[in-house]
Amino acid sequence: MGQDRVYTACVIIIGNEVLSGRTRDANLQYLGERLNDLGIRLAEARVIRDDDEVIQRTVNECRAAYDYVITTGGIGPTHDDITSASIAKAFGVELRQDAEAVALLKRHYTDDEFNEARQKMTYVPKGARLVKNPISSAPGFQIDNVFVLAGVPMIMRAMFEELQDSLAGGRPMVSRTVAAHVTEGALAAGLGAAQDKYADVEMGSYPFYRKGRIGVSVVLRGADGGRVEEAAADIADLVRGLGAEPVDEADI
Amino acid sequence: MGQDRVYTACVIIIGNEVLSGRTRDANLQYLGERLNDLGIRLAEARVIRDDDEVIQRTVNECRAAYDYVITTGGIGPTHDDITSASIAKAFGVELRQDAEAVALLKRHYTDDEFNEARQKMTYVPKGARLVKNPISSAPGFQIDNVFVLAGVPMIMRAMFEELQDSLAGGRPMVSRTVAAHVTEGALAAGLGAAQDKYADVEMGSYPFYRKGRIGVSVVLRGADGGRVEEAAADIADLVRGLGAEPVDEADI
Repeated sequence: MGQDRVYTACVIIIGNEVLSGRTRDANLQYLGERLNDLGIRLAEARVIRDDDEVIQRTVNECRAAYDYVITTGGIGPTHDDITSASIAKAFGVELRQDAEAVALLKRHYTDDEFNEARQKMTYVPKGARLVKNPISSAPGFQIDNVFVLAGVPMIMRAMFEELQDSLAGGRPMVSRTVAAHVTEGALAAGLGAAQDKYADVEMGSYPFYRKGRIGVSVVLRGADGGRVEEAAADIADLVRGLGAEPVDEADI
Repeated sequence: MGQDRVYTACVIIIGNEVLSGRTRDANLQYLGERLNDLGIRLAEARVIRDDDEVIQRTVNECRAAYDYVITTGGIGPTHDDITSASIAKAFGVELRQDAEAVALLKRHYTDDEFNEARQKMTYVPKGARLVKNPISSAPGFQIDNVFVLAGVPMIMRAMFEELQDSLAGGRPMVSRTVAAHVTEGALAAGLGAAQDKYADVEMGSYPFYRKGRIGVSVVLRGADGGRVEEAAADIADLVRGLGAEPVDEADI
């Protein structure tokens, strides 16, 4: 677990309902924050359809490009839940019933309830390790660097907490925000110069318009907390040089 | 504008802040819904970093794969706003100042305010057509099948309304939801059979847990409204066969 290596992850959100606009994704923000806590940078996210070929292609592309891939959605009992089968194909391995998954679901369901549809949730790619689901039993799984989780946010989060010890990371990024009632256009030149000075601190500029006033939040992120603080002090000076005062983000 | 051809789009959300979890994206759901109204299927979305090479690669991949590409974010005045320059490179054309954009911004800013940073917002790839911004003047642009919009939701939406007449589409998908207090596992077999019967109606199954009760929303989507209604009636019968009654989504 090197301190200097940058660990990267990609999240693949599988679900027509997110693309049609019916459902607003609630998992990406959570995963971005939690991965950062673990010292892993969420480098990309994709939202794709419940389509066998698309899932296979996307998973294979992303698992080659990033340290970790986390998928959400499509592991339930209905006909549109095809994620597990598609990922088995992506890895070129058999999808097969897992004895441990059967045992888990048998504790959750009566014999009558444990029908063919629910048994579908006990099939995982050969070689996969289960990720426990403390909410509704039907497990996710890990195969190589790919972690396959449920789409329902409550269950996805519980699964992520179960698997997080499997994720090696580097140093978490430290983040500080300097917000002020100045315009981006007025701040831009000084901010660009500050970015040149602090190459190891990522500076993002996000305009806001709230309570009838415009302003900017400058977000500073870096692995070295001391450097982030120094940069934040410089940006605060820059804001004062424009005749404004930094404000608490909670007050804007 | 053929009625039977399926028109597809890809949304590329450009912004470190969405990946770090600092900001929750608010544009995807809007675009998914509005594209559907225009008879265009949002087939994929990607969230990527403010990184020149990543933006170029992603835009080139997606513009070859889909009818339309819509990007959001990274067209402001600060150093981290690199979208326009990266897209010019992706197309292999020059990034150059646009006289119409200069005229638009000169009406919005005083001479003092119209500094180098703000002038950056008047540069677009050669051959691009401006997309007006009725909120804060700085325009987006269209080049070939790629539409480059602001990331701030209020501005992004205003720009989308400006450009929508440029988007040819097919028939909008009609959507109906049948919700009931049954489990996915109980419904799955009948639902799978219904999906086989209605191959032209896409059936998605989404479990919910609200007010202490579990249930499923079955979402039916298709271009033929009559078929969607028929399928919805079949699913309602299926629910009744399980001893439940369809409920209004507003009541769950």
